[in-house]
Amino acid sequence: MTAKQIGVGIIGFGTVGRGTAASLVARGSEFAQLSGADVRVVAVSRRSPVAADELPGDAQYCADWRNVVASPDVQIIVETIGGTSIALEVVRAALAARKPVVTANKNLLAEHGDELFSLARRCDVLLAMEGAVAGSVPVLRALAESLSGDRILSLRGILNGTANYILTQMERERLPFEQALHEAQRAGLAEADPSFDIDGIDARDKLSILARLAFNGRVRPQQIPTRGIRAIAAVDFDYARRLSSTVRLVASAELHDGEYDLAVQPWLVRCESKLASVEGAENAVIITGERAGTHMLHGYGAGGLPTGVAVASDVLAIARRLASGTLRFQSVAGFDAAPELKLSNQPQAVPWYLRLTVRDRPGIVARVADALARHEMNIDAIVQEPGMSRERLSFVVTVEPALATSVAAALGEINRMDFMVEPVVLLRAEGW
Amino acid sequence: MTAKQIGVGIIGFGTVGRGTAASLVARGSEFAQLSGADVRVVAVSRRSPVAADELPGDAQYCADWRNVVASPDVQIIVETIGGTSIALEVVRAALAARKPVVTANKNLLAEHGDELFSLARRCDVLLAMEGAVAGSVPVLRALAESLSGDRILSLRGILNGTANYILTQMERERLPFEQALHEAQRAGLAEADPSFDIDGIDARDKLSILARLAFNGRVRPQQIPTRGIRAIAAVDFDYARRLSSTVRLVASAELHDGEYDLAVQPWLVRCESKLASVEGAENAVIITGERAGTHMLHGYGAGGLPTGVAVASDVLAIARRLASGTLRFQSVAGFDAAPELKLSNQPQAVPWYLRLTVRDRPGIVARVADALARHEMNIDAIVQEPGMSRERLSFVVTVEPALATSVAAALGEINRMDFMVEPVVLLRAEGW
Repeated sequence: MTAKQIGVGIIGFGTVGRGTAASLVARGSEFAQLSGADVRVVAVSRRSPVAADELPGDAQYCADWRNVVASPDVQIIVETIGGTSIALEVVRAALAARKPVVTANKNLLAEHGDELFSLARRCDVLLAMEGAVAGSVPVLRALAESLSGDRILSLRGILNGTANYILTQMERERLPFEQALHEAQRAGLAEADPSFDIDGIDARDKLSILARLAFNGRVRPQQIPTRGIRAIAAVDFDYARRLSSTVRLVASAELHDGEYDLAVQPWLVRCESKLASVEGAENAVIITGERAGTHMLHGYGAGGLPTGVAVASDVLAIARRLASGTLRFQSVAGFDAAPELKLSNQPQAVPWYLRLTVRDRPGIVARVADALARHEMNIDAIVQEPGMSRERLSFVVTVEPALATSVAAALGEINRMDFMVEPVVLLRAEGW
Repeated sequence: MTAKQIGVGIIGFGTVGRGTAASLVARGSEFAQLSGADVRVVAVSRRSPVAADELPGDAQYCADWRNVVASPDVQIIVETIGGTSIALEVVRAALAARKPVVTANKNLLAEHGDELFSLARRCDVLLAMEGAVAGSVPVLRALAESLSGDRILSLRGILNGTANYILTQMERERLPFEQALHEAQRAGLAEADPSFDIDGIDARDKLSILARLAFNGRVRPQQIPTRGIRAIAAVDFDYARRLSSTVRLVASAELHDGEYDLAVQPWLVRCESKLASVEGAENAVIITGERAGTHMLHGYGAGGLPTGVAVASDVLAIARRLASGTLRFQSVAGFDAAPELKLSNQPQAVPWYLRLTVRDRPGIVARVADALARHEMNIDAIVQEPGMSRERLSFVVTVEPALATSVAAALGEINRMDFMVEPVVLLRAEGW
């Protein structure tokens, strides 16, 4: 008996596209055994030509992606272009042609997920996306399927490997931010324009997807308060060490009284905590459910090979359903017809870390303490590293749980004080 | 429009059955939104009667499970009896009646998984089992689906929460084994007969399931060399501490040259390692893939609520397929028609930790060293805690990577030496 052939078309043949093709070729015989079909890459599209020896198996190169979508030999479309312009056209066209789509494009899903899942529903076809967040760490399937029997209370994620690499390099090698960033760029981990990674935009897009799945409600990335790591300096790691802590860029979503607090911001996390254990370019998601307690999923969140594994795994899942004639649309929690997620106007009070850089003179602590007190913030500790110049002296104030609005108001005042050399650096502190 | 109703029958209403019912009731409205069906528990069976106020919603109690399987109101069967006698009958009968089954019964799947998946295939119905290993930690779906695009090179799991609780209590509180076991029993973590947990049988059954999914081959639990933790003493934690390590019961499966090394045994693991970070009743699985690198999945591996979440999540996945008319059998890697897993006759050489307890006298180290040397084992270090009685003196020998067969032969000789007070305690040491 000849096995049914299922043709895959890969549109966008960069790192992730090539990683996907490599997995599909390497796992071909396993896929055939598990799906009962011969799953193979039959077409590849990229704006710039692909050399024959770079093409997987006997796949055809197509300059125009429309020919891949239209090809009768292609039953599954893999979109690995990235971005939201052509990728959006590709996914729309594929779904409209009733071809199931696998994408790893968090940007596209964060911005246009509702439209695309709605289109997939109308066309009764699958849209799969495990690779879109945390690479091969199986967090989307965990939220959408494995933990669907629980009510999720909180999510905490280290979702951007580049930012985490920079922070851990600053911590280990005591590097200034700029140098750690250059190293990440040299290591191929950061783009020439690194702002998506270091300003928290990428983590914010990913958090919006995770929050949708976890809480079954729609949220736009622009609704999520986001601060990146540009202001973090080597001295913050000195202070963190004194506090038995380190610094991580954390994407968090928490349920309180029926409302959700979502944010991306740098956190001061204790050295022995799960968040601190995530090092270098790794990703991790910590999920706390009402009944299942706390889970952590941890691994490589980026790179063509891990993300290619996630995409290829989605291709196999679709191939199995195609082969058994059971491929239908499946709704995904939080997209399309889901209700809006109710975000809180007033996130819960949490502890904070404030680093002030000042021109030293008498009375500074008194004025800062007064500003904090007027905004109902209680000081927990004041720490100062020794041996600093009086012209540029830093000290750290940690405060007991306080509302973000109080902190913002107090910082507004403090930042205008005449002894301030640069704005206060603010970290959310893990509760302890 | 009235939503389609999908009735669930729970057979076996102990901790996990009740946890499942609690999740299904609590998540009812989410399930309705996601599946498009009204998923509810309509029947519960247990040998001993269930009080009316313990029954979920308006479920009926049935003394005879056959009535649950036969009921036209029941579309999904949840088997939470445990064990392999009645549970086997229940699952066989349900599948034969073409009713999809959700089970969390690792014992049943380890012993009868091939028969049951084969029956499920013939009856074209689903058998789901996420709760069978590591409770709500989504490791089965990760292996079967999310990482199917990768070739798995190794698996390391802490799969028995009771054994891990005992070991971490011994470590933290410096308790003797018997006392830590009693504490686990008092905490409701260990059975009156704790042998399944502490002799590694439960971990072995779970490893056999994980290995099938990871490597797509059949393996019987009895083929897995298994040693438990009965011989571990408080003094092993003193030695471990000197070696910057601790002790964990590890289920491991590794691919070498096309063959698999599977074992359950106590390991000496470095304090900063991922395995050491798993504390108390937690479970964790570390999965290394050829392309995706190393992932860790970590959480609560037992208890009615976490396992109930896993079972309820499987129920939702089935309900969605029932509601969309796409419920078909789905083959699961490593079961039914899969090839036999090729186990190696000669597992890879690894480092070891040997603790000897002797009546002290001159020449002991020389005789032990001689026996090790004749079996081609190189000593790495010899460590002795101070202040022990000469009548019962222990010391530890760590050896460089050596074959398990060499270790067994050397220990056979050493255990017969007249100065030995008790058999050598053997730990596999994590490579360093």
